[in-house]
Amino acid sequence: MALPDSNLKSSMPNHLTIGLFGFGVVGEGIYRVLEELPSLNARIKTICIRDPHKPRAAPSALFTTDAAQLLQDPDINLVVELIDDAAAAYRIVTEALRSGRHVVSANKKLIAEHLPELLRLQQQHGGSFLYEAAVCGSIPILRNLEEYYDNDLLHALSGIVNGSTNYILTQQAKGLDYAGALKQAQELGFAESDPSLDVEGWDAANKLALLLAHAWGIVTPPEALLRKGITRLRPHDWAHAREKGWRIALTATATRLADGKVGALVLPRFVDEGHPLYGVRDEYNGLVLESRLADRQFLSGKGAGRYPTASAVVSDISALSYGYRYAYKKLRAGTGGGLSDEFSLDVFVGYGEGTRTGASAFDEVYSTFHSGSGGYITGRITAARLRATAWWQDPDVSVIALPEGFTAPERTRVSRGKVRDLLIAEPVA
Amino acid sequence: MALPDSNLKSSMPNHLTIGLFGFGVVGEGIYRVLEELPSLNARIKTICIRDPHKPRAAPSALFTTDAAQLLQDPDINLVVELIDDAAAAYRIVTEALRSGRHVVSANKKLIAEHLPELLRLQQQHGGSFLYEAAVCGSIPILRNLEEYYDNDLLHALSGIVNGSTNYILTQQAKGLDYAGALKQAQELGFAESDPSLDVEGWDAANKLALLLAHAWGIVTPPEALLRKGITRLRPHDWAHAREKGWRIALTATATRLADGKVGALVLPRFVDEGHPLYGVRDEYNGLVLESRLADRQFLSGKGAGRYPTASAVVSDISALSYGYRYAYKKLRAGTGGGLSDEFSLDVFVGYGEGTRTGASAFDEVYSTFHSGSGGYITGRITAARLRATAWWQDPDVSVIALPEGFTAPERTRVSRGKVRDLLIAEPVA
Ligand SMILES: NC(=O)c1ccc[n+]([C@@H]2O[C@H](COP(=O)([O-])OP(=O)(O)OC[C@H]3O[C@@H](n4cnc5c(N)ncnc54)[C@H](OP(=O)(O)O)[C@@H]3O)[C@@H](O)[C@H]2O)c1
Ligand SMILES: NC(=O)c1ccc[n+]([C@@H]2O[C@H](COP(=O)([O-])OP(=O)(O)OC[C@H]3O[C@@H](n4cnc5c(N)ncnc54)[C@H](OP(=O)(O)O)[C@@H]3O)[C@@H](O)[C@H]2O)c1
Repeated sequence: MALPDSNLKSSMPNHLTIGLFGFGVVGEGIYRVLEELPSLNARIKTICIRDPHKPRAAPSALFTTDAAQLLQDPDINLVVELIDDAAAAYRIVTEALRSGRHVVSANKKLIAEHLPELLRLQQQHGGSFLYEAAVCGSIPILRNLEEYYDNDLLHALSGIVNGSTNYILTQQAKGLDYAGALKQAQELGFAESDPSLDVEGWDAANKLALLLAHAWGIVTPPEALLRKGITRLRPHDWAHAREKGWRIALTATATRLADGKVGALVLPRFVDEGHPLYGVRDEYNGLVLESRLADRQFLSGKGAGRYPTASAVVSDISALSYGYRYAYKKLRAGTGGGLSDEFSLDVFVGYGEGTRTGASAFDEVYSTFHSGSGGYITGRITAARLRATAWWQDPDVSVIALPEGFTAPERTRVSRGKVRDLLIAEPVA
Repeated sequence: MALPDSNLKSSMPNHLTIGLFGFGVVGEGIYRVLEELPSLNARIKTICIRDPHKPRAAPSALFTTDAAQLLQDPDINLVVELIDDAAAAYRIVTEALRSGRHVVSANKKLIAEHLPELLRLQQQHGGSFLYEAAVCGSIPILRNLEEYYDNDLLHALSGIVNGSTNYILTQQAKGLDYAGALKQAQELGFAESDPSLDVEGWDAANKLALLLAHAWGIVTPPEALLRKGITRLRPHDWAHAREKGWRIALTATATRLADGKVGALVLPRFVDEGHPLYGVRDEYNGLVLESRLADRQFLSGKGAGRYPTASAVVSDISALSYGYRYAYKKLRAGTGGGLSDEFSLDVFVGYGEGTRTGASAFDEVYSTFHSGSGGYITGRITAARLRATAWWQDPDVSVIALPEGFTAPERTRVSRGKVRDLLIAEPVA
């Protein structure tokens, strides 16, 4: 069946001339993909790298180490920033926006830390700044939060947003030790150049900050978010997970509270078999969205690696060629109620020999276990009180959210008053 | 952190005045949702229904049975069509588009059967026609295929696209019989008024036709698609699934072939535990997309029911208020290679006592089982040859795709030449 093509010509894409910064895992991927997709109407004119002596799988005439050569080229209307140097990335992105150029970046740290300024520069100078690859790699979550979940009263999102920690945790669940698993993730190109960004949960916090902006119009410095990474997980925690048939995932979670504010945090979480995140393995990411009309939705896909990340960058380039920009409707509507730590969590708190972990911060203690080499407490605690405890960031304490819908074992559920007695009682086998 | 709001005013939404057709499961849902979302800048002016005597949970002044009152009202710039009368829906949608109005519909049958005409009417008269709710209810698949998977060389999609059959199959897997499960689905409002649309796979075929148009720019009459529903599933098939730890799902599948054409069909499928569709239960839908860069992606969400369906309709209304229309880029690019039946399938073919099921159509037979009350063949067959067999639509024959990545048991794998001998051999226990 033939299709008439009369008046759709108006939506022909604009031609984009690209200045590419970075030719590493993702940058070289973008170069290769654009070579194969002439239909995209986008061409790389110059590539800026750091080291002029590295051999490159592209014609040497394309390369320079002089950023100005790209940023001052009147031909270049799109800057694609894919480097691993935070300070340089900041200068490149802000200068490109200041000159009215469009920018695509995958640099969640830069974007999360400078969001208000980057929004202002877009508005003042007219460039469009897209960064889908910065959150959950290949999963089109930002675009969907902007365009699709716009009116569908979203009340929660929770997900695995960091591919390298998920890869590490998947290997650990199979019995590999932490150091070996981290090394593998680095060799496979999933990990950030500075691994603490991943394993301490900073990368997840950066992504959560961006999710909050696009989901509810909340702008927050990522440092303000309650955050714990995966470096404190103890062999006992893994044993507990195995015993219960659970996995451990590093999750970024945000929930709209009764007062309209949003509770948000990055925390390892036990995930049981019925939960959509249970099947999210290796470098995959997954996001569960809960909204009033649509109920529960789930999206998963690769969150790291050359081509999955490139797929999101290429989608941004394509969208730009059609004039797309994030509308930040929720931010402009100003209805996002801000963040709050006044919400409750069901957590497992593991501690080592000689560590003091007070149970007095808990509203309710479900169970306690203690032995010569440490123990754990499960119970309900508010985020605010968790943050205020002396032990929350103790290197020998793990804090892991209990599975969603966890039902406390009634037998061992003990009220707050009895906790102190229990804690000094004999170890339970 | 405050956000400057200088030049974003240009993206203020247009006001929409809605003429709503239908006040059933979905129509009444939309009415209620719009009442609660004044921010949407869309207002229902008149509602057209069939029966003027039914009590309605809305002011009676809103209602009419006269379609012309909506279609000729110069105030109404958006027609939302949510009725269950195919012929009337066709007249309403085409007339609304012919008058240049925007249209939102959830009527997959209408849209799939008249796609070329509906495209032409949009182009000739300028109205925008959106129908996200028509495919996978709340899952934003059409918008993502249009906008996001645009350049990411998609090579396959496969999914559970019909909520009521998935609900029925989920209940059957728990032991309920077919008739009881169908009745439940109807009572819950998931089933079409004419249940054969669901259970014979017609609804899935309609949705597959729409997916093909937005994924690859292929326009096909849904009747042309190879299709088998769930009415032929036999108790033996369920026993086989249970024995293997598989589920049965009705799936719509499309795969890009080596020659650029696409092989597409609707067929029940055994799904094993490692597959993303395994966890898609009840009225949920799920879609797996495979693409060259992003690799495998998975989306799931509710595919039927009042509010999940309404969530997609509301998203379309919101998008329209910002001037959105499907660009049908792939259709216009004309790169979709068309459909082909020259692709291979791994299938399980079950048959009853006295039924003749030839194995000669198979390229390879993996195993055969025969007993007094019938039996089955598993093997590899091309879609073209399956379609040409005498038994493919036999009421006593079930055809179920084997799990993805199914590895034929080497012991029993038999080449084509030996099949006839096996078929007349003694039953295998
Ligand atoms: N890898 C992933 O899976 C992934 C996923 C999502 C997002 N990201 C983000 O994508 C960005 C790039 O990551 P990557 O993994 O591709 O990094 P990478 O492999 O380490 O490559 C970094 C590239 O940046 C270049 N570079 C560093 N400093 C520079 C400077 N001052 N000027 C010009 N070029 C400079 C390097 O040049 P030389 O080649 O000369 O050393 C190298 O080509 C990061 O923001 C990262 O967070 C990555
Ligand atoms: N239900 C779902 O979960 C779901 C999911 C996806 C898509 N859809 C699609 O959404 C549409 C509506 O489904 P539904 O489940 O809401 O149907 P429904 O509950 O059966 O309601 C149908 C409505 O259409 C009205 N109607 C029928 N013929 C009419 C005519 N000629 N003029 C004006 N009104 C007429 C009926 O009027 P009376 O009230 O006077 O009888 C009734 O209000 C269908 O296209 C369906 O395929 C439904």
